[in-house]
Amino acid sequence: MLNLVWDIEYKVQLLQISTFKHTTMAVKSKVLVIGGTGYIGKRFVKASLAQGHITYVLHRPEIGFNIDKVQMLIDFKQQGAHLIEGSFSDYQSLVHAVKQVDVVLCAISGTDSNNLLLQLKLIDAIKEAGNIKRFLPSEFGMDPSRMGHALEPGRDAFDKKMLVRKAVEDAGIPFTYVSANCFAGYFVGNLSQLTGSFIPPRDKVCLYGDGSVKEIYVDEEDVATYTIKTVDDSRTRNKTVYLRPPGNIISQKELVCMWEKLIGKELEKSSISPEELLATMKGKILQPNQACVD
Amino acid sequence: MLNLVWDIEYKVQLLQISTFKHTTMAVKSKVLVIGGTGYIGKRFVKASLAQGHITYVLHRPEIGFNIDKVQMLIDFKQQGAHLIEGSFSDYQSLVHAVKQVDVVLCAISGTDSNNLLLQLKLIDAIKEAGNIKRFLPSEFGMDPSRMGHALEPGRDAFDKKMLVRKAVEDAGIPFTYVSANCFAGYFVGNLSQLTGSFIPPRDKVCLYGDGSVKEIYVDEEDVATYTIKTVDDSRTRNKTVYLRPPGNIISQKELVCMWEKLIGKELEKSSISPEELLATMKGKILQPNQACVD
Repeated sequence: MLNLVWDIEYKVQLLQISTFKHTTMAVKSKVLVIGGTGYIGKRFVKASLAQGHITYVLHRPEIGFNIDKVQMLIDFKQQGAHLIEGSFSDYQSLVHAVKQVDVVLCAISGTDSNNLLLQLKLIDAIKEAGNIKRFLPSEFGMDPSRMGHALEPGRDAFDKKMLVRKAVEDAGIPFTYVSANCFAGYFVGNLSQLTGSFIPPRDKVCLYGDGSVKEIYVDEEDVATYTIKTVDDSRTRNKTVYLRPPGNIISQKELVCMWEKLIGKELEKSSISPEELLATMKGKILQPNQACVD
Repeated sequence: MLNLVWDIEYKVQLLQISTFKHTTMAVKSKVLVIGGTGYIGKRFVKASLAQGHITYVLHRPEIGFNIDKVQMLIDFKQQGAHLIEGSFSDYQSLVHAVKQVDVVLCAISGTDSNNLLLQLKLIDAIKEAGNIKRFLPSEFGMDPSRMGHALEPGRDAFDKKMLVRKAVEDAGIPFTYVSANCFAGYFVGNLSQLTGSFIPPRDKVCLYGDGSVKEIYVDEEDVATYTIKTVDDSRTRNKTVYLRPPGNIISQKELVCMWEKLIGKELEKSSISPEELLATMKGKILQPNQACVD
């Protein structure tokens, strides 16, 4: 299912991973991961190390109060990562960190979408440092440039990602935007039902309409692997990379069917109409486990 | 530093790990870990699997809402663990889970010491199930039977552990109590200063008195390894096992000295007297990162 293929916007060109692997790569860039102990960030750190990049992880001084995150940092260090103290609330620390590397990969959480705009400060730091060959802002979901029709509460995050993109491009910083669509952990776990749980049901399931709309689920480890593969690939410079493995493009109904086969039991099905779904969204605040509905 | 030696109460007998390794063990017991996604519990699961035990992990239905814990459970399952749904709020689920195994290892957090008393329900379930060869209640710190002199807010947890011990012994359930003294992650990280951070300082340190009192720091992975080693060892039946690696028994001053050598810099030292320390404790509620002061 996770035999990845991606296509690169503008070129409308499908690249099999097998051909991608043979792309000549010179010296591996040094990579700074920001948000490296977070949900997707920790996977970026591991993938960056696994692919042989000298890897830096920015961590805030306050992280010292979270023993699980401290131990994660120690693990990273033992695997060869360089830990570097810094914070969005200390601009000079950002400039200093950025100066150590070639590539900046920001995995700051967008759960509170206001956090996304902290990246404007990072963009200033990258501009001042002047040495960055590639910047990947915090995206890794749907392509915000194609989500102009999204509704609140979700669309706010897309709008803020677009503001960040504008700042990156205005500053002339070489970038790659990675659109990973739906993280499998969040969207496959509960058969695409955004109820808050990540464990699939064994009794009943609620389908969106007739459940036939195709979704693109991408395993988070694959997101990390192929995100890191972009950083030294000249073809992805100033481009959006879409992760869309053909085997992962399935409907909710097909996903439910896979689960039913696995547990040897048919689930009781109900359905929610677009109108009913929209009614449930009114006045809601986006939860960490919910995505914006297209 | 972590060349473990332990001694077993009542026998006052020092056993080198090298001799311990040669102890004949028959069939490996099946182990149920309760609290298996917690700080020490996750290490018990890994150690139990690593030592070849058929390992069950009890998880609450509500864990489905925590994606990191769901992914941890999936990892455990991929490593061969059996996941079993149950909860302290569902007594029959406890009886059912207990009936699958030979050994119950409870790693429920004592951060909120009231949680410790939930184990009384588990003891009832073990009694009803009638098949358990060994129960290890949630201890793994200082030996509560030697902490009668401890002060509040810390002593409350010791008192509750003693209530649990009494219930275990009244029920005639074979037990092992593991006293692991001070978890290294919590106590070494910040040079034994209980300030809330787990990262060692690079400028100054505050010593307790003259910093010469010996403490016993035990790495959490070692706690897990040797806890699991007790479950099939007849010598540890109805005994307290102390983890006291001689190389790990050092004073705060010695610990600071090790850190100073590592960073090549002497820290500025201050000191807090017993009276001052006691004054700071008055009316305080124990924080998750703080231990009781002996």
